[in-house]
Amino acid sequence: MVTVLKLGGSVITEKDRPETLDGEALAALAEAIAAALDDGAVEDLVIVHGGGSFGHHHAAEHGVSASEGIRDVGGIMAVHGAMKTLNQFVLSRLHAVDVPAVPVHPFSAAARDADGDLTLMTEQVATMVDEGFVPVLHGDGVVHAGEAVTVLSGDELVTELAGALEADRVGLCSTVPGVLDGDDEVIPHIDDFDEVADALGASDSTDVTGGMAAKVRELLALGSPAYVFGPDAVGTFLAGGDAGTRIG
Amino acid sequence: MVTVLKLGGSVITEKDRPETLDGEALAALAEAIAAALDDGAVEDLVIVHGGGSFGHHHAAEHGVSASEGIRDVGGIMAVHGAMKTLNQFVLSRLHAVDVPAVPVHPFSAAARDADGDLTLMTEQVATMVDEGFVPVLHGDGVVHAGEAVTVLSGDELVTELAGALEADRVGLCSTVPGVLDGDDEVIPHIDDFDEVADALGASDSTDVTGGMAAKVRELLALGSPAYVFGPDAVGTFLAGGDAGTRIG
Repeated sequence: MVTVLKLGGSVITEKDRPETLDGEALAALAEAIAAALDDGAVEDLVIVHGGGSFGHHHAAEHGVSASEGIRDVGGIMAVHGAMKTLNQFVLSRLHAVDVPAVPVHPFSAAARDADGDLTLMTEQVATMVDEGFVPVLHGDGVVHAGEAVTVLSGDELVTELAGALEADRVGLCSTVPGVLDGDDEVIPHIDDFDEVADALGASDSTDVTGGMAAKVRELLALGSPAYVFGPDAVGTFLAGGDAGTRIG
Repeated sequence: MVTVLKLGGSVITEKDRPETLDGEALAALAEAIAAALDDGAVEDLVIVHGGGSFGHHHAAEHGVSASEGIRDVGGIMAVHGAMKTLNQFVLSRLHAVDVPAVPVHPFSAAARDADGDLTLMTEQVATMVDEGFVPVLHGDGVVHAGEAVTVLSGDELVTELAGALEADRVGLCSTVPGVLDGDDEVIPHIDDFDEVADALGASDSTDVTGGMAAKVRELLALGSPAYVFGPDAVGTFLAGGDAGTRIG
């Protein structure tokens, strides 16, 4: 009964200012997570966070993406180092409210082959969960055969983890309260991409790592229901409720 | 043709003073490594370093070993954090002489089952080597089923990496110039444990993670020749020469 929760990079950082944490938003999320663990609403939890103004700033500066690699060690260390710094902030806030969070740095635990296919070790993550820890992964660089190092996004990690750990619930905490239709209203439930394709095309929610339409398509392919919701609804999601948009 | 080189924790730190680097020794090793890569003496290199006064200090303070675990997140983060700090120092010195070193943190990439058997992901390490990087691993904590977190030593990493990457040479850079006999003379070649067991019992070289006799026994079990030598001989080893004691 594993729950995978992604904290969007835009939620926990000030996305327009390089390497700037949104400490207030992060502290509120940490409190909601601690409360859900304390009252037993959720037991087995894996957290993934995005890069926000830590990862994307350096990735853009060095011209690295999920398919275009960089070989320059200085650039690789800048991206990876910034993400480890953000991860340390997230861990600190979780530790401050007694969440037994431990770090898993994907650059150490993943590789892409020449086709770009990802191998992510998840046995350590599963053992951490079994031992009562809350593993915290993050968007990062990843070694990539023929490309040196490319980007491994938080969303790609969520998909991999949900599959490998057979997660029963997946939550994406985003800056928007759910997947929005053409009138900016939250769509309560999506289980067929074609039904919402037009409305998603009209949505003005954007994301540097692919946009909401691509995200919905990926989440529909998961074996477990996924929820897209805003920061205020993380407690509802962790308590097992319908938060934001349910996908699948 | 992968070479695995371990830099002993006692070589690169002041072992008696908590979290104190031996910057001069580390800089000399980095120069020897850079020179060997520059002149093509070695092509595919994986580095492992021990904990020295960074890892062992915290491990002893929190009572964690390879078999006795700790569950306290503060203790786990102290050990892991100190080792990431030491790893950052090692990377910085290697970058200063243009070695394309990248970090692999074993806490993110390994797990032990209930029998203590280790699973270490090595696909990312192999891909890093193929892409021209020098992966740098280190002694660390590791999640352990039933024990929470135990110690994963640099020596255990060397054994795992040598096997998985089919290393053709393994080098252990230690504070002693080789495996010493009862008269403190370097034994040039060991290929049978029984022949040297008495002499090793008389050796006064000690190591908190098992002692020289246990190390020799493990190195004899590798499929590739291993060398134990002092800091001055790292260039000789990387150039393919007989440095210190050859084992196997």
